[in-house]
Amino acid sequence: MGNMAGTATSIASVSESNRSRIMHHLYQHGVSSRAQIAKALELTPAAITKITAKLLDAGVIEETGDLEGSKNRRSIGLKLDKNAFHVIAVKFARSLVQIGVFDLAGTPLTVRDLPQITEDTISETVNLLHAIINDMIHADSAIVAVGMAVPGPYLRHIGRTAVVSSMRGWQRVNFLDEFGGAFPVPVFVEQDARAGAFAQYLFDPSVADDGLAYYLIGEGVGLGVIDHGSMINGAMGAATEIGHVSIDIHGKPCECGNVGCLERYCSTPAIHEMIVNEGDLIDNASQLTHTQAARTLFAMAKHGNERAIQLVRQVGQYIGFGCVTIFNAFNPAQIVIGDIVSEAGPLLLDEVKTVVNQHVIPELNEATTITLSELPADAALGGGAAVAINQFLEHPSMFFELT
Amino acid sequence: MGNMAGTATSIASVSESNRSRIMHHLYQHGVSSRAQIAKALELTPAAITKITAKLLDAGVIEETGDLEGSKNRRSIGLKLDKNAFHVIAVKFARSLVQIGVFDLAGTPLTVRDLPQITEDTISETVNLLHAIINDMIHADSAIVAVGMAVPGPYLRHIGRTAVVSSMRGWQRVNFLDEFGGAFPVPVFVEQDARAGAFAQYLFDPSVADDGLAYYLIGEGVGLGVIDHGSMINGAMGAATEIGHVSIDIHGKPCECGNVGCLERYCSTPAIHEMIVNEGDLIDNASQLTHTQAARTLFAMAKHGNERAIQLVRQVGQYIGFGCVTIFNAFNPAQIVIGDIVSEAGPLLLDEVKTVVNQHVIPELNEATTITLSELPADAALGGGAAVAINQFLEHPSMFFELT
Repeated sequence: MGNMAGTATSIASVSESNRSRIMHHLYQHGVSSRAQIAKALELTPAAITKITAKLLDAGVIEETGDLEGSKNRRSIGLKLDKNAFHVIAVKFARSLVQIGVFDLAGTPLTVRDLPQITEDTISETVNLLHAIINDMIHADSAIVAVGMAVPGPYLRHIGRTAVVSSMRGWQRVNFLDEFGGAFPVPVFVEQDARAGAFAQYLFDPSVADDGLAYYLIGEGVGLGVIDHGSMINGAMGAATEIGHVSIDIHGKPCECGNVGCLERYCSTPAIHEMIVNEGDLIDNASQLTHTQAARTLFAMAKHGNERAIQLVRQVGQYIGFGCVTIFNAFNPAQIVIGDIVSEAGPLLLDEVKTVVNQHVIPELNEATTITLSELPADAALGGGAAVAINQFLEHPSMFFELT
Repeated sequence: MGNMAGTATSIASVSESNRSRIMHHLYQHGVSSRAQIAKALELTPAAITKITAKLLDAGVIEETGDLEGSKNRRSIGLKLDKNAFHVIAVKFARSLVQIGVFDLAGTPLTVRDLPQITEDTISETVNLLHAIINDMIHADSAIVAVGMAVPGPYLRHIGRTAVVSSMRGWQRVNFLDEFGGAFPVPVFVEQDARAGAFAQYLFDPSVADDGLAYYLIGEGVGLGVIDHGSMINGAMGAATEIGHVSIDIHGKPCECGNVGCLERYCSTPAIHEMIVNEGDLIDNASQLTHTQAARTLFAMAKHGNERAIQLVRQVGQYIGFGCVTIFNAFNPAQIVIGDIVSEAGPLLLDEVKTVVNQHVIPELNEATTITLSELPADAALGGGAAVAINQFLEHPSMFFELT
């Protein structure tokens, strides 16, 4: 049914689609000849010649000289220079906003944290972002786009997040209105876990290019799933909201209206609450940020504190129940657990796998890997970059005069 | 990221893909001129002329004479005659197997139930099916394929269902080995709810062609989701197994290994159990089949029996919690509830909507419709037909000499 897309929805343009396929190919495979691209994509040599000529003219790609010593024009190497273009990435968590500049390979060139945010400083933060982004664009002419990763459920056609548990002020920020036309380069906004899935897909060569679930566990809990080459979006961009899938219809109420939402059991705010309820486990725990509290707990567990180990195990069990739901709802080939809570390491992962081993259909369990993200700690910010880079590869005509 | 498919997975062939798009267009839009098809699909007139010539030569499509009185060859009507080709459909439920012959429009030409099945008569049933299918194919030369709808989680690459709660004997049947090469026409096997989604998509004009979730509630509980034109499959074809998504991690154990599986609360076996536990509500309830027990309950509720109404409401609540999960996991534009339990009618649907109204994010709730299937009672069998018809439209070269 892959083709159903061709009939059910309008394809913007066949040539843009072929341009994009060539861009993706050069991005993923490096230097390639026209003949190699033609073979890989089943396009005619004439189409390849025409499209690559325009991309060369516009300076998107470049020629690298003959491959294999041949003089045949079709064996000249073509290349998409990943250092030639930069993107700005922004990650909005609840109390933390990070911003950075990345090249197309996902390498962070600069990264900074904005000051810690409270309900009262959200609009200040938004204003500060405008200024920083403008400065960055003026300082670096290689910047072609801004990618923003925001907490879900992000309503794509409206431009705002429907529920931001534990910091509702973000719900009033319309990202499209606020940033959409604000800069000389285009801005793209995506739910954070889906952005993380793009980052895994684009930047980590060890990740399968299909059947990937990126399971984000930080201030919120989210999920991005690539199924047979397509990101699962849902009608409004609010699919794969695993954080609001209930694991217990008699469970804790959530700000989204549902009860027993997974996010209430294993996000950093939930972990922080568990720590505070433990009393004297961590001194002045209630004074810490959610992230600080979680990281302190993980460090104590790594140093052998039994109570800390038990708490991490408990968190791992809930994450494991979330995994079981991911198996049955999405049947990915690979689940990558990322964001702050993945820093708890092997102790957490072992507990996740114990729950999965007990509750998942054996054939599915055997065929699926569960790992902690191997991207560096700012991988979540890299998600914002990946969102922008994916658009750059998908819609080159938005960035260059190509017709 | 729609294009990622073009790079991540190999497209069988561009011309087969274009053939398929033309087949889908004629299937959905009826008589169309070459120019209309070229415009709708953004294909060149030359490509259309070449592809349609081959389809005409092979007898797949036919010309219907001039449209709009023009003599221009490109305004001659082309048509895919939905009566000219037939498919055999088989639906495997646990205790019930149905078989029928359908035309391409999804109209049932013949339908029959096989004798009620128990664990002991599964292999007998399989043998009987071989004989019936062979007879049908010999009696009707218009039959081009067999489509089978089987309970999930169906492991597509293996050919069998991983868990068939309440009738495990089916787990030993390998549908591909058993039926794959057994007949002079190809056989296609699909998880039943996904087959139902194909049927809704192909046969019911009132169903949106995008963002569709078909929520099957019968002897099992299943789901098929079409997201932006693509069926969600999962790595092994075992995605969207809503029946095994837990609604309660402290809930009833399920044969799949998980606990609190939705299927344990609202399938016909679960309803049957609730009825038996009610004692004297229905005489000799334990002697009835699951389907008979459920239908008796629904009839009593429609006639105003208060205890029956309460039980149907309780079932509706569980189905509603399943809907809430569907919203948060898949964000469809439309949820269609089908199969036996949908026969409970508006009383059930009202209760489902009450739960949804209380637990779903308002923006998603407002943008999503929930309805009972409007296809006739044998819609589930129609799913088998839809699986075969979809393959016929997707891969015409499997059925005709076209190259």
